[in-house]
Amino acid sequence: METFGKRYHPPGTPPGTLTRHSTSDTTHIRLFEYDGENFSETSSPTAQQCQHAQQNTLVDWLDVTGVNDPIAIRELGETFGLHPLALEDILNSGQRPKIDFHEQHAVLILNLPHLIEDDIVLEQVSLFIGNGHLLSFCSGDGAAFEPVRQRLRQGFGRMRTRGVEYLLYTLVDVVIDSAFPLLEDIGEQIEALEDRVLEKPDKAILHTLHQLKRDLLLLRRALWPQREVISRLIQHDAELVNATMRPYFSDCYDHAVQIIDLIETYREMLNGMLDIYLSSLSNRMNDIMRVLTVVGTIFIPLTFIVGVYGMNFRVMPELEWEYGYFIIWGIMLALAIGMLAAFKWRKWL
Amino acid sequence: METFGKRYHPPGTPPGTLTRHSTSDTTHIRLFEYDGENFSETSSPTAQQCQHAQQNTLVDWLDVTGVNDPIAIRELGETFGLHPLALEDILNSGQRPKIDFHEQHAVLILNLPHLIEDDIVLEQVSLFIGNGHLLSFCSGDGAAFEPVRQRLRQGFGRMRTRGVEYLLYTLVDVVIDSAFPLLEDIGEQIEALEDRVLEKPDKAILHTLHQLKRDLLLLRRALWPQREVISRLIQHDAELVNATMRPYFSDCYDHAVQIIDLIETYREMLNGMLDIYLSSLSNRMNDIMRVLTVVGTIFIPLTFIVGVYGMNFRVMPELEWEYGYFIIWGIMLALAIGMLAAFKWRKWL
Amino acid sequence: METFGKRYHPPGTPPGTLTRHSTSDTTHIRLFEYDGENFSETSSPTAQQCQHAQQNTLVDWLDVTGVNDPIAIRELGETFGLHPLALEDILNSGQRPKIDFHEQHAVLILNLPHLIEDDIVLEQVSLFIGNGHLLSFCSGDGAAFEPVRQRLRQGFGRMRTRGVEYLLYTLVDVVIDSAFPLLEDIGEQIEALEDRVLEKPDKAILHTLHQLKRDLLLLRRALWPQREVISRLIQHDAELVNATMRPYFSDCYDHAVQIIDLIETYREMLNGMLDIYLSSLSNRMNDIMRVLTVVGTIFIPLTFIVGVYGMNFRVMPELEWEYGYFIIWGIMLALAIGMLAAFKWRKWL
Amino acid sequence: METFGKRYHPPGTPPGTLTRHSTSDTTHIRLFEYDGENFSETSSPTAQQCQHAQQNTLVDWLDVTGVNDPIAIRELGETFGLHPLALEDILNSGQRPKIDFHEQHAVLILNLPHLIEDDIVLEQVSLFIGNGHLLSFCSGDGAAFEPVRQRLRQGFGRMRTRGVEYLLYTLVDVVIDSAFPLLEDIGEQIEALEDRVLEKPDKAILHTLHQLKRDLLLLRRALWPQREVISRLIQHDAELVNATMRPYFSDCYDHAVQIIDLIETYREMLNGMLDIYLSSLSNRMNDIMRVLTVVGTIFIPLTFIVGVYGMNFRVMPELEWEYGYFIIWGIMLALAIGMLAAFKWRKWL
Amino acid sequence: METFGKRYHPPGTPPGTLTRHSTSDTTHIRLFEYDGENFSETSSPTAQQCQHAQQNTLVDWLDVTGVNDPIAIRELGETFGLHPLALEDILNSGQRPKIDFHEQHAVLILNLPHLIEDDIVLEQVSLFIGNGHLLSFCSGDGAAFEPVRQRLRQGFGRMRTRGVEYLLYTLVDVVIDSAFPLLEDIGEQIEALEDRVLEKPDKAILHTLHQLKRDLLLLRRALWPQREVISRLIQHDAELVNATMRPYFSDCYDHAVQIIDLIETYREMLNGMLDIYLSSLSNRMNDIMRVLTVVGTIFIPLTFIVGVYGMNFRVMPELEWEYGYFIIWGIMLALAIGMLAAFKWRKWL
Repeated sequence: METFGKRYHPPGTPPGTLTRHSTSDTTHIRLFEYDGENFSETSSPTAQQCQHAQQNTLVDWLDVTGVNDPIAIRELGETFGLHPLALEDILNSGQRPKIDFHEQHAVLILNLPHLIEDDIVLEQVSLFIGNGHLLSFCSGDGAAFEPVRQRLRQGFGRMRTRGVEYLLYTLVDVVIDSAFPLLEDIGEQIEALEDRVLEKPDKAILHTLHQLKRDLLLLRRALWPQREVISRLIQHDAELVNATMRPYFSDCYDHAVQIIDLIETYREMLNGMLDIYLSSLSNRMNDIMRVLTVVGTIFIPLTFIVGVYGMNFRVMPELEWEYGYFIIWGIMLALAIGMLAAFKWRKWL
Repeated sequence: METFGKRYHPPGTPPGTLTRHSTSDTTHIRLFEYDGENFSETSSPTAQQCQHAQQNTLVDWLDVTGVNDPIAIRELGETFGLHPLALEDILNSGQRPKIDFHEQHAVLILNLPHLIEDDIVLEQVSLFIGNGHLLSFCSGDGAAFEPVRQRLRQGFGRMRTRGVEYLLYTLVDVVIDSAFPLLEDIGEQIEALEDRVLEKPDKAILHTLHQLKRDLLLLRRALWPQREVISRLIQHDAELVNATMRPYFSDCYDHAVQIIDLIETYREMLNGMLDIYLSSLSNRMNDIMRVLTVVGTIFIPLTFIVGVYGMNFRVMPELEWEYGYFIIWGIMLALAIGMLAAFKWRKWL
Repeated sequence: METFGKRYHPPGTPPGTLTRHSTSDTTHIRLFEYDGENFSETSSPTAQQCQHAQQNTLVDWLDVTGVNDPIAIRELGETFGLHPLALEDILNSGQRPKIDFHEQHAVLILNLPHLIEDDIVLEQVSLFIGNGHLLSFCSGDGAAFEPVRQRLRQGFGRMRTRGVEYLLYTLVDVVIDSAFPLLEDIGEQIEALEDRVLEKPDKAILHTLHQLKRDLLLLRRALWPQREVISRLIQHDAELVNATMRPYFSDCYDHAVQIIDLIETYREMLNGMLDIYLSSLSNRMNDIMRVLTVVGTIFIPLTFIVGVYGMNFRVMPELEWEYGYFIIWGIMLALAIGMLAAFKWRKWL
Repeated sequence: METFGKRYHPPGTPPGTLTRHSTSDTTHIRLFEYDGENFSETSSPTAQQCQHAQQNTLVDWLDVTGVNDPIAIRELGETFGLHPLALEDILNSGQRPKIDFHEQHAVLILNLPHLIEDDIVLEQVSLFIGNGHLLSFCSGDGAAFEPVRQRLRQGFGRMRTRGVEYLLYTLVDVVIDSAFPLLEDIGEQIEALEDRVLEKPDKAILHTLHQLKRDLLLLRRALWPQREVISRLIQHDAELVNATMRPYFSDCYDHAVQIIDLIETYREMLNGMLDIYLSSLSNRMNDIMRVLTVVGTIFIPLTFIVGVYGMNFRVMPELEWEYGYFIIWGIMLALAIGMLAAFKWRKWL
Repeated sequence: METFGKRYHPPGTPPGTLTRHSTSDTTHIRLFEYDGENFSETSSPTAQQCQHAQQNTLVDWLDVTGVNDPIAIRELGETFGLHPLALEDILNSGQRPKIDFHEQHAVLILNLPHLIEDDIVLEQVSLFIGNGHLLSFCSGDGAAFEPVRQRLRQGFGRMRTRGVEYLLYTLVDVVIDSAFPLLEDIGEQIEALEDRVLEKPDKAILHTLHQLKRDLLLLRRALWPQREVISRLIQHDAELVNATMRPYFSDCYDHAVQIIDLIETYREMLNGMLDIYLSSLSNRMNDIMRVLTVVGTIFIPLTFIVGVYGMNFRVMPELEWEYGYFIIWGIMLALAIGMLAAFKWRKWL
């Protein structure tokens, strides 16, 4: 997960300047038009088709993926009358999730997290809604929306019979819920770590702990504001979120809260595990220390004693004694046992 | 306590899809109908009986336990006119406690914690109330509600003479208060740990500390939102919580606050104990260290001295002295006593 | 200080059930009736006397201490028309401080902390006020109210000339201010610890630190909500807290805030001291370590050298040299001084 | 800085009892009366002079310093109609800063911190304002107000031409700003510590860190509520803080916020430094440890080897070899170099 | 970054006194006047030119850089009718960002951070706006505004056709966005540190960590209040922030929030890294310790054994045995292997 994407212009440049976003994905534009009875899908629609779509009574979904072509975006923006600052937001991925209400439309900027080869990648999804049409811009390949496209194409459920508000809900729901599989994955990693931390704390754990903490920190930054976005959407826009749609968006809100809740819980668990890890390390060092102490403090005095009788003084009475050697062994054994008992008594063993 | 239950659908599936919840409990449905004079209990009522119950003036309690049959739940939902998203919430246990107000009824989702073999298990209780009837769905065996059922059957107290609001209060009270025995159990474990932490800090303590912290963390996540649920119930619904019922629900609210209060207090106590544990470890290592230092620093120089006179140089004048051996013993004793005195003076002993 | 008092019923029992509180104190009931001109004190008043007291225009104070008789309390409750849930609160000590407004009366539940043999004990004080009478229930012996009783008996000050609101203020003031001597005691202990922590960090300090932290944590839990209780009393009840009484209750509120302030300050000081304690420990271990290092690293190589010339090889040229022994002494001295200088240079000494 | 001043009465004594505050300062009372054209200063004014001052249209400032005479204060209180609880607050220094609005006057209690011989001392300043007169009571010698007195006496600036509100602002400004020199002093101490912490962490630093943390903690407790006092003054009293005076009191408010901001920043810096201090200690111990390890692990095996050939077994073939001694030296050198290389490779050197 | 600039007057001096700010920059004053058709730039305008500029209908921008001349500032203040306290704020750099609304104009005080030789320097920018003119005062050389000046001079974009509100937005945007390059720089340093912390924790890292934490702490203090400044500007001033300008200032607000967000995220990352650093240190010490233990505990007993047979007792039977020497080698090898196996089994190797 990248810590800091280029998300600003050099200070002092005029606002609304479009800069090219460097992704390798090619831009795909699809126009879906439908109501209860009709359905059409146009790939790469012309400006004329777009303008036509705006005027009829069908629900229009302009689905743009792999956003990286400033000129095409600018044209679309002009066709649909989008604010230049909003266009700038679409092209500069790495935005904080937010909701803006302009005269003609509302803009939601959301983060869609997914895993690419064990790495958390954020895809920026910008949703423009107003006057019966919805524009969605994904900075990535927009694969997460494929099930929605399929449901529209197949006419499965009551998807086609409902208005643009329901389409908005469906897309927001997909974006918010995309955090759950990631969090489940993290949850499983945490559970796996827990036993290892207590049993055998090694360096690899520290690495994983650090990685997980970092991922959760960045995920929190990316997802935390989404709760407020949904909350402001529900409170503000009486047209989009009417009595029928309110339970659906409330459900989205609950999910957003649940996600933040989970992230915070995981973060606290990881902090707790770091404490436990350090305590386990201390414990182990303590154990090792104790052994060193016992071995050291028992043998160091004994080594001194045998050193004494290795001295070459001309006059050393003990050396001449018949049983000197055996006496000295006895003394040394007594000393060793005495010290062992002392350690036992002090509970150091 | 399970960290992360399956609590989401794969992103993109239509909302309201019912998935089967894997529990081994079988579903039991009981229908209680009563007022001051009448009382009937029907096991596994038919759809017709349910519809009949809705129309009469008696208080109806449809008590469903061991929720795992999507088809039966869907049928009940249609009979009582429940929202599809609410049905989905019943079947997906692991929900965050919440309250939703629909047109016809209010929905409370609560967590009922209980101990199964020293393990904290969360049972999800969903309560639907409206138009004189109350539906309760327990994800587990619903044993916690048995005393309430008994009081209804035996007509003990004024239970039967009061309306559906009092029944709601009784069930909410049971769910909230179920946390107290758990917390008492945790409280006793903490008190037992306290002495051990100061006296003999060992690895098992670390394990228990970690376990308790984790349990409290997950318990907090499960129970924290219940305070807000009760608070919103009191503020919002003037019909359910009228002047007579207000003291009862206020009492529930006080209990919910007390539970959170206790959880936070216990968490802080455990954090304090971890600090003390680490300090005790440091203290012990310090003690051990001191002994090693004293033994080491006293004998290492002495061993050097005896090593000197173990050398085999041809010319070593001291070796020839009559009292060399005794003089060296004297020097060594003086050195040892001097060092002991120095340690004493530095307060290392 | 007890961590967890029995403060709940088994889940599912009907609310309002009175359980007997296990204290050894005997219940004392006193009825004070007074106005500017009259004063009477009745010990153990009959139900009739109580009812009479309710009807006259005198200020009535029913002062109950050593609450442990459910039957007597229930009778009093019926005489004065108290809510069954409120009676339950009186008998279950260990309540969180709270204020409830019923139709006829307001109920304040407060905690009165005092020291019994260096142990902090919480006495629960429940105050019922309404219609010109005040009922006070102390779970302990109510000794803290003795000065108030004396002032009433002696007619000292303007106590008797003021209404029941002033009596309420006096009792609340006594309860709140009872925390000050405790906190002063704790403050003095903290000051005494501070010097010891920096000078000679030993195990007893850790014990005291832990004890103080725990006491403050539990004291905070017991006293924190009292601030809100007073605040809600001032805001809510225009009759009790009129323009004349407002400065008095504001003063109580200021004291409650000051108490919380002090508790938080002390807690931060103790946390700071634990950090300092651990740092001091590290410092000491560092000192000891340095000495061990110096003695060890100086003598270990020297011991090796003398070991070399203690070997019994047939051919060892140095041993035959005239001044070999003295040369080796010179080398060893040079080595020792060199190492000492190196340590000095690295600031390890 | 004293942790806990006597700031309470024994619980149960009647409120408003005046107790004598033990300071060695003598009480000075000065009465300033002025408007644009007149100015008079009366030292130790009589009660009659005070009453006269209340009735004329001049601005009156009754400036009391070294408050320790309960009788004089009580008399003043009666002359100016002050509330008995407010008088009590004046005499009990150690109050939490607060603002009270009585019928006739507003009362501000503030803390004026200053340094006496490197020790932070709090002087309590009580300001009564109403009806064109201002009473100020300092618990200390009131030296901080001397510049204000001088400006009044000399008629410098527009001081005399403005009303009592401007005088209030001037005094409040003096009290609030008196924290800046203290904080600058602490800021300089922190900067001086920063280098030492990284370079040479010693015990004295720990002492200073602890001292600074404690001072900031107590300073925060004393000054934090002043922000709210000014804020409530601005919001509440439309007469004192009119459109002309608003920018001045806003400036005071900004300073109060800046002071809290600085205290918090310093506290965080000190916490950061304690972490760095502990890390530096660990680093140093690590360095020392490494040297001990290298010296120990290199010489201990070598000492064993030379010990082997110091044994006196009758049959030890190596001892008889012509070049045994030199071979053993070679082996030992190879071993030592090998181990050094291994340590180098593991980056332990 | 300087911790504490002189930002206060000695307590007791009259407010509004101008003191000379010690910077080496020389003051530059530029007057820009423009509308859609006209443009003029006057360097060092006279008071007359300034007064003339106030009266015409052109947009006026008085751009003052290198503020250090109290007399010139006072004159400008009188010409444009600025409040004396506001003038004081301009000259005392080190102000907390704030917004004040006076009768004639609004004042914004902002901090513009930039890097000078790897050191974060804060430049104070004060903006006065009202009646179609804008005054900007930079405490530094104002180089950050150069692109804006160029855009005005060159008439690029629609800069000249828009009113003074757009100019205000442009300058505020420049000031706020100036934090991004700094934060990117810090972000890169943090990423670079992360690998080093886990791989090779050394003292230099601690130094860098400390430096970064301190910079972020001071940056947070300087930039945090800017969010509230923009928020209050949007909410308060309906004239400046009309419907057309709202999206622009909202964008500024989003950037201010993003900056605080980044600072907090970085601070948490650094705290996490300090934990990891300490854990890595512990890990390394643990590794070193283990080696010392193994070498020590294996060779200390062996050294004792060889010491035994170096003793010179007259009677030592083992010494006379034919294979004594070889037997002892066998015993010692067995002992060494046994101990190695024990360590392996305890997972210490």
